[in-house]
Amino acid sequence: MTIVRHEGLPIFSSVVEHGGVVYVSGLVPQDRTLDVSIQAKDIFQQIDANLAKAGVDKTRLLKVEIWLKHIERDFSAMNEAWKEWVDPKHLPVRVTSEANLASPDVLIEIMATAAK
Amino acid sequence: MTIVRHEGLPIFSSVVEHGGVVYVSGLVPQDRTLDVSIQAKDIFQQIDANLAKAGVDKTRLLKVEIWLKHIERDFSAMNEAWKEWVDPKHLPVRVTSEANLASPDVLIEIMATAAK
Amino acid sequence: MTIVRHEGLPIFSSVVEHGGVVYVSGLVPQDRTLDVSIQAKDIFQQIDANLAKAGVDKTRLLKVEIWLKHIERDFSAMNEAWKEWVDPKHLPVRVTSEANLASPDVLIEIMATAAK
Repeated sequence: MTIVRHEGLPIFSSVVEHGGVVYVSGLVPQDRTLDVSIQAKDIFQQIDANLAKAGVDKTRLLKVEIWLKHIERDFSAMNEAWKEWVDPKHLPVRVTSEANLASPDVLIEIMATAAK
Repeated sequence: MTIVRHEGLPIFSSVVEHGGVVYVSGLVPQDRTLDVSIQAKDIFQQIDANLAKAGVDKTRLLKVEIWLKHIERDFSAMNEAWKEWVDPKHLPVRVTSEANLASPDVLIEIMATAAK
Repeated sequence: MTIVRHEGLPIFSSVVEHGGVVYVSGLVPQDRTLDVSIQAKDIFQQIDANLAKAGVDKTRLLKVEIWLKHIERDFSAMNEAWKEWVDPKHLPVRVTSEANLASPDVLIEIMATAAK
């Protein structure tokens, strides 16, 4: 099966398509305002843009992995941003854990997998 | 390819089927007794129940991701519960890392992916 | 669809093949020299060896998940080892987060997914 790789990041692909699945790289916010809602919405827009590279949208999400720098403090606020973004009729599976991320001002990172 | 989504959780699907793969959401224990063996067995039962929604069982596991709140303390006990649960002739790949999870009384979270 | 499981680890498979996808278990370094470059290169060699079990190589990588024990300290050094290893024309998607791992002398763990 063919692999389609969408570039855009220096040392990894932004999106890889294979076998009917669209893999999006882990995304961190470009807006580093120290507010998890703002950072989450920034990432959701990036996911939309990355899924569009493969010709799909968030109604095709299969699996979403979320990392929060402060899970107890930010879990509810992240969920509110999530509920505004996802399509309630096409919900993916999800997992959320706490982790420090590549830069100390990154409060959230998200990796999405979708169906082509 | 069709996507089948099994609901059950308020803001994400419990199980999503696509392309011959069954994605199960990250699961936390319902029994919050502060003992990782009890919590692990609780989650394994939930995985069995979720795989059954897609008509499969643990002999079809492909990949299992495990998060432990206290990896040094609980790794061995988790592995003992794991060995009691998995089918030794049908072992998935696995990864385990340490993370705080959504609630402080959650000692373990597990995300499973299986073949349809 | 058939599942092919490559053994080698006591309680999980080293590699599982299904539906055109090759899942490699989370790998920790065999060389526990406390230098993330050495540990990363050790793991990259193991990934190469595991992909070979399924008859593929790193040009078929789809997704790579990386955990670092000290992300701020070791992110750059890990990226340097990464750049020496990956094929720049066949880059996977990637995510990196910080986590303690199963043994305190493990500075990095990596899980790879590739196309058959």
